[in-house]
Amino acid sequence: MRTLALGALLLLGLSLTHCRTTEKKETPAVAGTSAVANPLPSWNDATAQRITQWVSAATDTANASFIPVADRIAVFDNDGTLWPEQPYPNQVQFAFNYLQALAPAHPEWKKDPVINGLLNNDYEPLKKAGMKGLGKVMAMTHSGMPTDSFSYAVKQWIDTAKDQRFGKRYKDLVYQPMLELLEYLRNHQFKTYIVSGGGADFMRPWTESVYGIPPYQVIGSYGEVKYEVKNDKPVLTKLAGDFYVDDKAGKPVAIHRFIGKVPVFCGGNSDGDQAMMQYTHGSPYKSFCLIVHHTDDKREYAYDTKTLSGHLETALQEASQKNWLVVDMKNDWKKVFPFE
Amino acid sequence: MRTLALGALLLLGLSLTHCRTTEKKETPAVAGTSAVANPLPSWNDATAQRITQWVSAATDTANASFIPVADRIAVFDNDGTLWPEQPYPNQVQFAFNYLQALAPAHPEWKKDPVINGLLNNDYEPLKKAGMKGLGKVMAMTHSGMPTDSFSYAVKQWIDTAKDQRFGKRYKDLVYQPMLELLEYLRNHQFKTYIVSGGGADFMRPWTESVYGIPPYQVIGSYGEVKYEVKNDKPVLTKLAGDFYVDDKAGKPVAIHRFIGKVPVFCGGNSDGDQAMMQYTHGSPYKSFCLIVHHTDDKREYAYDTKTLSGHLETALQEASQKNWLVVDMKNDWKKVFPFE
Repeated sequence: MRTLALGALLLLGLSLTHCRTTEKKETPAVAGTSAVANPLPSWNDATAQRITQWVSAATDTANASFIPVADRIAVFDNDGTLWPEQPYPNQVQFAFNYLQALAPAHPEWKKDPVINGLLNNDYEPLKKAGMKGLGKVMAMTHSGMPTDSFSYAVKQWIDTAKDQRFGKRYKDLVYQPMLELLEYLRNHQFKTYIVSGGGADFMRPWTESVYGIPPYQVIGSYGEVKYEVKNDKPVLTKLAGDFYVDDKAGKPVAIHRFIGKVPVFCGGNSDGDQAMMQYTHGSPYKSFCLIVHHTDDKREYAYDTKTLSGHLETALQEASQKNWLVVDMKNDWKKVFPFE
Repeated sequence: MRTLALGALLLLGLSLTHCRTTEKKETPAVAGTSAVANPLPSWNDATAQRITQWVSAATDTANASFIPVADRIAVFDNDGTLWPEQPYPNQVQFAFNYLQALAPAHPEWKKDPVINGLLNNDYEPLKKAGMKGLGKVMAMTHSGMPTDSFSYAVKQWIDTAKDQRFGKRYKDLVYQPMLELLEYLRNHQFKTYIVSGGGADFMRPWTESVYGIPPYQVIGSYGEVKYEVKNDKPVLTKLAGDFYVDDKAGKPVAIHRFIGKVPVFCGGNSDGDQAMMQYTHGSPYKSFCLIVHHTDDKREYAYDTKTLSGHLETALQEASQKNWLVVDMKNDWKKVFPFE
């Protein structure tokens, strides 16, 4: 489930002109490139060089900045870092679509004006209901079902749902330069993790095929689940209520909880990622932090301090003090999406 | 931190004749064997064959029981499954030792009769204080310090502390047949995880060198930690209060939370492991569950339903119904410890 802060931002920014559709047509899966000559072909040379120089030093046993393989932990935010988060997080669009899929089994939902509105593509009642309304939608679509059913729904959605502006499936709308970076790091024996405010159960069904990141390297926000044996079969059911918010200070806490090591590489794009960048920067090794700065409204979106889904202000200041790489999407990326 | 249930059991069974000592002398580290001819030399042939036959089928693409590499997840309990848990869990002995190490910085502790007793090797006040007293000892030794300091203390302890009965360091008192099994599974591209009621922060500093299991594959009970930046340095501090109990139904819940896949192999030794065995048994693949049954009071300990640290009753019944392998330590293991 998205963090509540993002939920609030979403409501402010909910753009009805950006309603997204779910379609069945298949297009080929995205694969990371593996060019030997230039491992980061979609990056401008100077920026790529800054990354490759750090990796060369980190993987050279003779270099003072050498990092043993066991400690090569790289963490990445997802929304706005590996795929877009505008005009609102993709997980919210999944919730709207899944609500419609679940509705036939819940005739009583029609009595709720917010839900009934969404089922009829009328977003006005939701806008009026504010945070509470969105919280209800997220809870209804993210709890009460077995984890298997939820995973299956996510898989179906990710294989078909398209972003309206680009007319592409969300799974194909991922940043080509970041796919290259993930693969480049893995080729140098880094373990790549996602550490996202998005829901772990929402990301895990597709991150391996899209990013090459297996479920057990995906850390996200998560709710409680209940274990039961029904008809001699084990069942895990997603529960409503408290959930762990993997954002801001919650990110280094989750990294400790799930990985138990301090990362040496961190990629993010917002103030929500600042704490895990500080944590990475505090590594005893010479670490590397990178901020994806959304500066390209032609090929993607341009936003930072003024944005609604993301918010980049204090992290940008700390980046300048600590020499973290700020990636100017417009000028540093030759290509944004694989299909370009 | 140990589960409260185990804490209660400990108090009942606290054996003053088994006080353990901390020493500085180094002995060589234990390494798993890697015999090619027989991967499980410390197991009796029939039992070993049952395991190797399952692995052969699971790794043979032509076999109906084939399991793709991505789904080869093997989970193991720790206390009583990979190392002994008698006369009480090793983590409790660590707590007693660490309390003494921390005491000089806390002169006020002497005013507490339970703590003062422990500092003078007098366990009577603790026995009288019961659960509440033990909870206090565990909290004082498992919260209030930076995670780094705690890890350092665990590392020091595991490198030196010895079990009195065997006169061996705890890190050398691990089950040789299980070391062989862990390595054998890894050699067949299984990922080996620990899923233990013991504290994650207590296990992670040494599981890689002792079992070959890195921190991010160690799931245990865990408390909250607080993230702060102090003097421009990130600090995580262990907090007292609520903690996640990774035992019984908490085990499959944690497996979902941390791994996001259903295991295909599960090793345990008590009813606390029964839920994760059921969960493993529910895999769509042909899975394998194994119970270490402590039947050898000469080479180790003999206990099951009568024990205080462990409790094996309903899991044994389910094992017989579901054809899980029950390992009779006395008859199925040629060797218990590496030093034999």
